[in-house]
Amino acid sequence: MSSPYPRYSWPEGRSSAFAFSVDVDAESPYLWGLPEGTPPLLGQMEQRLFGPRTGIWRLLDLLNRYGIKGSFFVPGLVAQNHPALLPAIAEAGHEIGLHGYFHEIVADTPTAEFVRALDASLALFKAQAGVVPRGFRSPAWEMTPEMLAELAARGLYDSSLMGFDHPYTIDGVTEVPVQWAVDDAIYFKFTGGGADRWHPAAQNGVLDAWLDEWTVLAREGGLLMLTVHDWISGRAGRIRMLERLLDAITATPGVWLATVGEIAAHHAASPNREHFVTRSQPPLPSAPRRFKAGH
Amino acid sequence: MSSPYPRYSWPEGRSSAFAFSVDVDAESPYLWGLPEGTPPLLGQMEQRLFGPRTGIWRLLDLLNRYGIKGSFFVPGLVAQNHPALLPAIAEAGHEIGLHGYFHEIVADTPTAEFVRALDASLALFKAQAGVVPRGFRSPAWEMTPEMLAELAARGLYDSSLMGFDHPYTIDGVTEVPVQWAVDDAIYFKFTGGGADRWHPAAQNGVLDAWLDEWTVLAREGGLLMLTVHDWISGRAGRIRMLERLLDAITATPGVWLATVGEIAAHHAASPNREHFVTRSQPPLPSAPRRFKAGH
Amino acid sequence: MSSPYPRYSWPEGRSSAFAFSVDVDAESPYLWGLPEGTPPLLGQMEQRLFGPRTGIWRLLDLLNRYGIKGSFFVPGLVAQNHPALLPAIAEAGHEIGLHGYFHEIVADTPTAEFVRALDASLALFKAQAGVVPRGFRSPAWEMTPEMLAELAARGLYDSSLMGFDHPYTIDGVTEVPVQWAVDDAIYFKFTGGGADRWHPAAQNGVLDAWLDEWTVLAREGGLLMLTVHDWISGRAGRIRMLERLLDAITATPGVWLATVGEIAAHHAASPNREHFVTRSQPPLPSAPRRFKAGH
Amino acid sequence: MSSPYPRYSWPEGRSSAFAFSVDVDAESPYLWGLPEGTPPLLGQMEQRLFGPRTGIWRLLDLLNRYGIKGSFFVPGLVAQNHPALLPAIAEAGHEIGLHGYFHEIVADTPTAEFVRALDASLALFKAQAGVVPRGFRSPAWEMTPEMLAELAARGLYDSSLMGFDHPYTIDGVTEVPVQWAVDDAIYFKFTGGGADRWHPAAQNGVLDAWLDEWTVLAREGGLLMLTVHDWISGRAGRIRMLERLLDAITATPGVWLATVGEIAAHHAASPNREHFVTRSQPPLPSAPRRFKAGH
Repeated sequence: MSSPYPRYSWPEGRSSAFAFSVDVDAESPYLWGLPEGTPPLLGQMEQRLFGPRTGIWRLLDLLNRYGIKGSFFVPGLVAQNHPALLPAIAEAGHEIGLHGYFHEIVADTPTAEFVRALDASLALFKAQAGVVPRGFRSPAWEMTPEMLAELAARGLYDSSLMGFDHPYTIDGVTEVPVQWAVDDAIYFKFTGGGADRWHPAAQNGVLDAWLDEWTVLAREGGLLMLTVHDWISGRAGRIRMLERLLDAITATPGVWLATVGEIAAHHAASPNREHFVTRSQPPLPSAPRRFKAGH
Repeated sequence: MSSPYPRYSWPEGRSSAFAFSVDVDAESPYLWGLPEGTPPLLGQMEQRLFGPRTGIWRLLDLLNRYGIKGSFFVPGLVAQNHPALLPAIAEAGHEIGLHGYFHEIVADTPTAEFVRALDASLALFKAQAGVVPRGFRSPAWEMTPEMLAELAARGLYDSSLMGFDHPYTIDGVTEVPVQWAVDDAIYFKFTGGGADRWHPAAQNGVLDAWLDEWTVLAREGGLLMLTVHDWISGRAGRIRMLERLLDAITATPGVWLATVGEIAAHHAASPNREHFVTRSQPPLPSAPRRFKAGH
Repeated sequence: MSSPYPRYSWPEGRSSAFAFSVDVDAESPYLWGLPEGTPPLLGQMEQRLFGPRTGIWRLLDLLNRYGIKGSFFVPGLVAQNHPALLPAIAEAGHEIGLHGYFHEIVADTPTAEFVRALDASLALFKAQAGVVPRGFRSPAWEMTPEMLAELAARGLYDSSLMGFDHPYTIDGVTEVPVQWAVDDAIYFKFTGGGADRWHPAAQNGVLDAWLDEWTVLAREGGLLMLTVHDWISGRAGRIRMLERLLDAITATPGVWLATVGEIAAHHAASPNREHFVTRSQPPLPSAPRRFKAGH
Repeated sequence: MSSPYPRYSWPEGRSSAFAFSVDVDAESPYLWGLPEGTPPLLGQMEQRLFGPRTGIWRLLDLLNRYGIKGSFFVPGLVAQNHPALLPAIAEAGHEIGLHGYFHEIVADTPTAEFVRALDASLALFKAQAGVVPRGFRSPAWEMTPEMLAELAARGLYDSSLMGFDHPYTIDGVTEVPVQWAVDDAIYFKFTGGGADRWHPAAQNGVLDAWLDEWTVLAREGGLLMLTVHDWISGRAGRIRMLERLLDAITATPGVWLATVGEIAAHHAASPNREHFVTRSQPPLPSAPRRFKAGH
């Protein structure tokens, strides 16, 4: 009756883990998806530029106040457009990871283009800040077996999938999983112009759900991977929400506050890498999916 | 002025009932609905495989801690892909019920295909775990008169409709009703990729509504049929929510904690089967639905 | 700087008013909107038949416990299909009002058809329960100047518009206004099958908003017109929510608990009928709506 | 590691600012967007006319009770249709600003038409109430570089963009920024007829988020620009919500309660105008947005 998997093991007597990750999207997803012939509207651009102007600095200040090292996944274009960002993030001791160049959406991007985006970002990050990223987070959190193979060939970890709530190994790649339920964008992103599908969620309700998630993960030895965005959670009200979350997490006995890269390195060097191993299972169009009637 | 129906009667001095049901969908609804030519994306597959890997074991542990026997409705494909599930569920003393083979959506499935899915599941469950299911729950909770007739011919109960909030008899079949308002998926399912229509609900707000539902059902002698899913409520935060719900329900005087099958058997053997009887009323396309003007 | 309107005056020293109205829709809106060729699915039919089977009796019991007379607006088809309803409602001393025959949606219904629905409902209600309704509530709360003229010709009040939050006179017809924000259906209706646009709202959040609405209406002398539906608010959890609302409202000093018909009669016989008078203002397609550039 | 921008400076020892702005839309957005051939339906018209009849007076009373001067942005058509509004607003000492003539949606409006709407509104406001507006708020909060140039040519401030959470200068125009998260319409607008995409939010959850926003803005020296609408926040329940918000804000030490025009004038006359300067960055269709594979 019990799970076929053991409890996940954390380093040196730690019993659970927390990672604070930032997807520094700024204007990149908007530009990627913009239809040809869009008029020169400023509304969403200004909303998103709030991130590099104000939001990212509030998040850096927040992490500094709590003594947490975060992991910042930055599209190449955002680093290129805002050259002060990477040096400031690196100087404060945080991790910098890959996040596509133009925030390429996976379903619309051939593997060869994905590879060029990866290599262009690596070159830019090296040139701008002397940084050699060790990990990748997919724009919009999608992935293919071919992309996993490219990460494996470069020795990069991945942080884009949701198959466990602690690290695991998929196709030989270390996966430090994310989860929609602890992402800020799905609750709070609102850009106007008629494209939104819901209003911003009541943030205290979201916070309560995040605290419940943490209560059980801390008890069962899991990882809470929080993900926030510069232009969304850099807004004033969300900073207050994050303070309340960090108050609770940093007060938890046994929690390991670590970057995504540190967690990936722990996984790859621990017995966990033998216990939590999967192969990717893309849906097969040739698989039978119906009983045909009358046969 | 009073209702034409009597109060529902429960066995041996019990005054209300609670059933914990799990629709073990895992990857099956995603594969059923997948358009031809979908690229080999891993995102939703990994999200759903969290259910068989982690979620289902957390739910089994939860039920064990509260001493509750649950009812697990399993599509044939899920049992086939994850052969450890049925034996583990059966060994722990829970009920196993039918839920289609490929999670067939009723409006898209001819009756003959529905019948083949039913019989293939029965054969598989027998072979895998020696289990002979006594009941059926429709994928996505839809039903036709023809399907009810097939269930009647096999002596199976149904648990897919919402015509009362305690058991009833429809077309001679025992119906143990569900209700959208106490289903986890409508509030919390979120898969990304642009297809979601709302963000996950604030779970404390949902919990409060469930507790209110229980307060009045316990008072009026009804049945609370909770339905959760392996890959949704097996997530850490939802386990905490369910603990709070079960704390309240198990502390209620007079509550009957029972499987759906036990409740169906009680209904069929009690005077209730004479008092709560309906015939299915499918909408008739030939019925008059307008006054034509000018006649 | 102050409003051009005086404070609304209530009878005999009352300072505010509350009306509990029920739109007894049951299966009628579903049948009205059903596309030709729909398969014989039972799901939504059973959900809606919960109303006549259980929900309406719970609402009648609730009103009886609080000593409130309600106003029940019933489509002709619902009275025809469930002949026990009107006599039970009338026997308990509640008001019965008109609500279309097939729950005709206004934008799709010529005035002549609307008139036939009105007259057929009047004849049926008279025959079933000896009832002569004094008021009309439009299905889905839409209205045209032509429909107002038909109501005026029959001496009926209307309860479908939202131009004030106390009664007023529009085109000579007494209007006892509704409001979306205090309607249950917009928050809680959920029927499944893929057509829903949001999940059921957290009901305690809705209750708090209703109590805030009441606080200010009671203070400023307005009318809270609550509207609920048999198959939605007859569900167990919603009964608990309504109990909390009625606890607060019935404890408010100076509140007039009245039927919609009593409120309409008060309006028509009081000085209010001179102070709150409007003409309908349908949007005019011929009105200028743009400045043309370059002229 | 710290932000490239200094803390925003407020006048005379004030440490943060709050502005209460009202977009007095009434019926204008509905008429702007109405398709040709719409039947003469009254529902939404009456909902929106609640604003000029009742809502706007409740908001004026609220501001009077709290001793706050607000900023009212009024489409020309609304002033024309309801000639009592501008004189009443001006007499109470509030600011009156521009908001288009027909509530022109930017993406559908050539610059020349925008200019004619601006000038027609200026002429009307002068004639009706002797008012010469100093600022502009775009309908639906969108903007183009051409429109900014027209505002600059007239010496008007803008209040339509979201690039900071305190005033800034863009293309030489003083921008007093708005923010979706502190706008009432995105949470509470609900008009029926099948076009709504979400139900009204639970207002206490929204209030809590607004209070969190204020907590951090007050601490960090920002501006909270609240925006409400006559026909939405003039409803009774929302008045109670606003009272709670104003209770907290007016009790905050160091807060500057000011009109948008006063804040714009402060910005233009302070060192802030040198520190917070940007150029508009419309998305460029010719910009590279992809790596092409295979080159």
